Amino acid sequence: MYQPQALSALGSFLGQRLSTSKSDLDLHGQSESYFSLSPPDAVAYPQNTGEVQKIMRICAEHDMPVIGWGMGTSLEGHALPVNGGLVVDFRLMDKVLEIRAADMDVAVQPGVTREALNEELRATGLFFSVDPGANASLGGMAATGASGTTTVRYGTMRDNVLGLQVVLADGRVIRTGGRARKSAAGYDLTGLMVGSEGTLGLITELTLRLHGLPEAVSAGVCAFTRNEDAVNTVLDTIQMGIPVARIEFVDTATAAAFNAYAGTNLPACPHLMVEFHGSPDSVAQDAARFGEVAADHDGLGFQWSTKEEDRRALWAMRHNAYYAILASRPGARAMVTDVCVPISRLARAVTETQADLAQASIPGPILGHVGDGNFHSVLLIDPTRPEELSEARRLSHRMVKRALDLGGTATGEHGVGMGKLEYMEREHGEGWDVMTTLKQALDPQGILNPGKLIRPV
Amino acid sequence: MYQPQALSALGSFLGQRLSTSKSDLDLHGQSESYFSLSPPDAVAYPQNTGEVQKIMRICAEHDMPVIGWGMGTSLEGHALPVNGGLVVDFRLMDKVLEIRAADMDVAVQPGVTREALNEELRATGLFFSVDPGANASLGGMAATGASGTTTVRYGTMRDNVLGLQVVLADGRVIRTGGRARKSAAGYDLTGLMVGSEGTLGLITELTLRLHGLPEAVSAGVCAFTRNEDAVNTVLDTIQMGIPVARIEFVDTATAAAFNAYAGTNLPACPHLMVEFHGSPDSVAQDAARFGEVAADHDGLGFQWSTKEEDRRALWAMRHNAYYAILASRPGARAMVTDVCVPISRLARAVTETQADLAQASIPGPILGHVGDGNFHSVLLIDPTRPEELSEARRLSHRMVKRALDLGGTATGEHGVGMGKLEYMEREHGEGWDVMTTLKQALDPQGILNPGKLIRPV
Ligand SMILES: Cc1cc2nc3c(=O)[nH]c(=O)nc-3n(C[C@H](O)[C@H](O)[C@H](O)COP(=O)(O)OP(=O)(O)OC[C@H]3O[C@@H](n4cnc5c(N)ncnc54)[C@H](O)[C@@H]3O)c2cc1C
Ligand SMILES: Cc1cc2nc3c(=O)[nH]c(=O)nc-3n(C[C@H](O)[C@H](O)[C@H](O)COP(=O)(O)OP(=O)(O)OC[C@H]3O[C@@H](n4cnc5c(N)ncnc54)[C@H](O)[C@@H]3O)c2cc1C
Repeated sequence: MYQPQALSALGSFLGQRLSTSKSDLDLHGQSESYFSLSPPDAVAYPQNTGEVQKIMRICAEHDMPVIGWGMGTSLEGHALPVNGGLVVDFRLMDKVLEIRAADMDVAVQPGVTREALNEELRATGLFFSVDPGANASLGGMAATGASGTTTVRYGTMRDNVLGLQVVLADGRVIRTGGRARKSAAGYDLTGLMVGSEGTLGLITELTLRLHGLPEAVSAGVCAFTRNEDAVNTVLDTIQMGIPVARIEFVDTATAAAFNAYAGTNLPACPHLMVEFHGSPDSVAQDAARFGEVAADHDGLGFQWSTKEEDRRALWAMRHNAYYAILASRPGARAMVTDVCVPISRLARAVTETQADLAQASIPGPILGHVGDGNFHSVLLIDPTRPEELSEARRLSHRMVKRALDLGGTATGEHGVGMGKLEYMEREHGEGWDVMTTLKQALDPQGILNPGKLIRPV
Repeated sequence: MYQPQALSALGSFLGQRLSTSKSDLDLHGQSESYFSLSPPDAVAYPQNTGEVQKIMRICAEHDMPVIGWGMGTSLEGHALPVNGGLVVDFRLMDKVLEIRAADMDVAVQPGVTREALNEELRATGLFFSVDPGANASLGGMAATGASGTTTVRYGTMRDNVLGLQVVLADGRVIRTGGRARKSAAGYDLTGLMVGSEGTLGLITELTLRLHGLPEAVSAGVCAFTRNEDAVNTVLDTIQMGIPVARIEFVDTATAAAFNAYAGTNLPACPHLMVEFHGSPDSVAQDAARFGEVAADHDGLGFQWSTKEEDRRALWAMRHNAYYAILASRPGARAMVTDVCVPISRLARAVTETQADLAQASIPGPILGHVGDGNFHSVLLIDPTRPEELSEARRLSHRMVKRALDLGGTATGEHGVGMGKLEYMEREHGEGWDVMTTLKQALDPQGILNPGKLIRPV
């Protein structure tokens, strides 16, 4: 057993910031999703890169698994220490290090959350765009390659991470990328680390791209009678080049969940929630053009506004969708599917998914970042009934298979973790073996987040 | 020696498409730049992925270097077979395989050039945005991580390659990425391959992102008395969020070279060349706003137009800049610097570079994609005078060192090849060793484009 010596070596410099209390272990052994409890042996709370480096060296010496932890909001069991080991929780590394407004970039520690960052940026006229539903940490978001409602306009984490500081499995500290807007100086190590789910290194600093707050914003909601009409509206909007900043789909079940959770009174039908960024003129024009497209697809009227409070209410509702859906079935846990398909296949993917769900024995409200071809079904499971887990697996499996058949991906944004491992072979073929080769090259002992992303050994 | 058996094995299925003629070898032993002749042992012209796979297996068996070749326009000796071996010239793999207009993507073979692709796209209302000065191949552009005048708006190759088919050093064929607009399904192998300069695999197919042709375009030129004024205009334009589609700087020497080469009559001073994409209203407004910013910096009047012929003439002039500058010193070869810095440091980088050049014994006109913080000095060398090569090296060295000190990169877009090898250690530190580790993992024999990007063994 590795723990005793490893833990005393860690404790010697972390002191109180190494915890083995049951509550701490349990907290870091669970996720927002349907996976069962698997606590680590200990939790470390480093304060700086030097400490992370020391931690890594000690764990390497003792062959002890090391699992990064941001806000624990990932949905595929990414951060669960399935073989025990040490969870490295980045919550104390939560400083915004330097805002460089002239260059529209910022250096942050990994524990800063997206909301905290935007709070700090408030006075600068700049914002950080990537916004998963949860208030995730930026380190975790880089590690999962997260995206959000504004990705259709401003990109995913891959597009918005300029550089990283990373502690490798052998304790070396590297800096990847940089502050130049582009570089052709060798392999894109930043790109390799983004989306690597803590299996190639621990991120201890990020340089992020910022965007200027738009001069004007318009946003609104449009109801539709049929899902297909909503989805075809998305397709036309994108193809006509109407520059949406957000375009989100929610189905009837999700709209009902909003009403119950947030006291809204959306009609019982599917909706699109959209937003435009630009000048006062352009956002009005864009909204009007979108309204026409929606009307062509029997939209039931597009209501929009440029008032900040209306917009805030709209997106708060959207960002709480997961919790609203969970609340619609008390006591339920969720398995969240996350397929992403070429936009021309979106209508088919959504329609066939709805048909599956109509036959299913469990509910699975649908919503998604449809401008990117990405949507989720939140499959609600009673955790005391194993047959519901099987049913969720069966449904998820059909959706993923369909997405792959349509030229899409098993996961548009949530990542692989454990939940999507079984599809990697199908999606990547020998490319998955190449990922394993890279993993073995950078982490030959396999101590970094074992059991995730890579073929289990 | 490996050649005889290897060549007969290759010849057995390539027939006439394996060449050892002196003219072919010499053609594939030279570059557009200042490096000396280093011919390969043979040149292969495969017609499909299966042939590339066979080639790779034979070369692996005989430990024979394999060097990809697109249009041979790279500027750092990327494609030169410095240890001999086989050049794989992709010119026969030049098919546009499938245009998927609804999804705004296209599948192409690597030998398609950017101009040929845009020719084929003409009827679709879509275009491929990345436009290096040369009519490069898309395989070569992916391999070098190229960018161009429109990168400030539409991104580099990294942003515009959705997926690849790659033949690895051991002959395995993988597909990376896909057609979904985003994916979080594991390591970003596409991103790893883009910019890997043929050292990790040969690209045999690309899926590229397309953009809708803008409804309206405005473009024009503005002269300035001082370089700083032009550069500060760029800084303000970017920071004010005026959505430039192109913003290019040329100094006085470059303007003079244009006049001599293309018969234009630009005044003898620095210029910005800019373009806006949008609606008729927005491109007029953007041009007007830009004109005001330029006037604030003592711009000598911004002339713009929405006529296609004016625009074509403007960008043809810009795309011929390299040849115009070469022609300004008959018989000269060029060493092209390619630094990229955070935009707030651009004025300083340009000004100090001009000061260096004013003292230098060789000419080095400056131009660049300044909206990204990227600029070049085309250092003109008389190839018969070794002291001029030393002078060019000294100047290039100062520019790179300055860029790195300012938080920038040694190469914004041209890549490492051989010419920028010496700066990799300084730019990446141990990150460069990590690149070597990845290279060794994927190409343990080191047959793929030896002598480039990675620390020489
Ligand atoms: C309500 C809700 C809505 C969501 N909506 C979205 C959405 O719209 N888009 C989306 O992409 N995701 C979404 N998610 C999923 C989740 O928010 C993202 O995956 C997020 O990126 C996870 O960040 P985190 O800080 O919680 O990371 P964690 O869950 O703590 O960790 C995630 C992974 O990153 C690793 N990790 C964490 N920190 C580091 C570090 N510093 N260095 C290296 N590895 C590290 C962990 O080991 C783990 O593998 C949602 C989740 C919820 C609960
Ligand atoms: C006048 C001029 C202007 C230029 N302007 C720009 C500019 O604005 N921006 C810019 O980025 N560059 C510019 N360049 C440089 C050059 O055009 C780019 O580097 C371009 O990407 C090279 O493409 P190519 O097809 O010529 O590739 P090559 O020069 O043939 O090859 C480049 C590298 O890619 C590898 N390679 C080629 N094909 C493949 C393949 N199928 N699979 C794997 N590896 C392969 C080669 O081995 C080599 O390492 C300019 C060059 C010139 C001469």
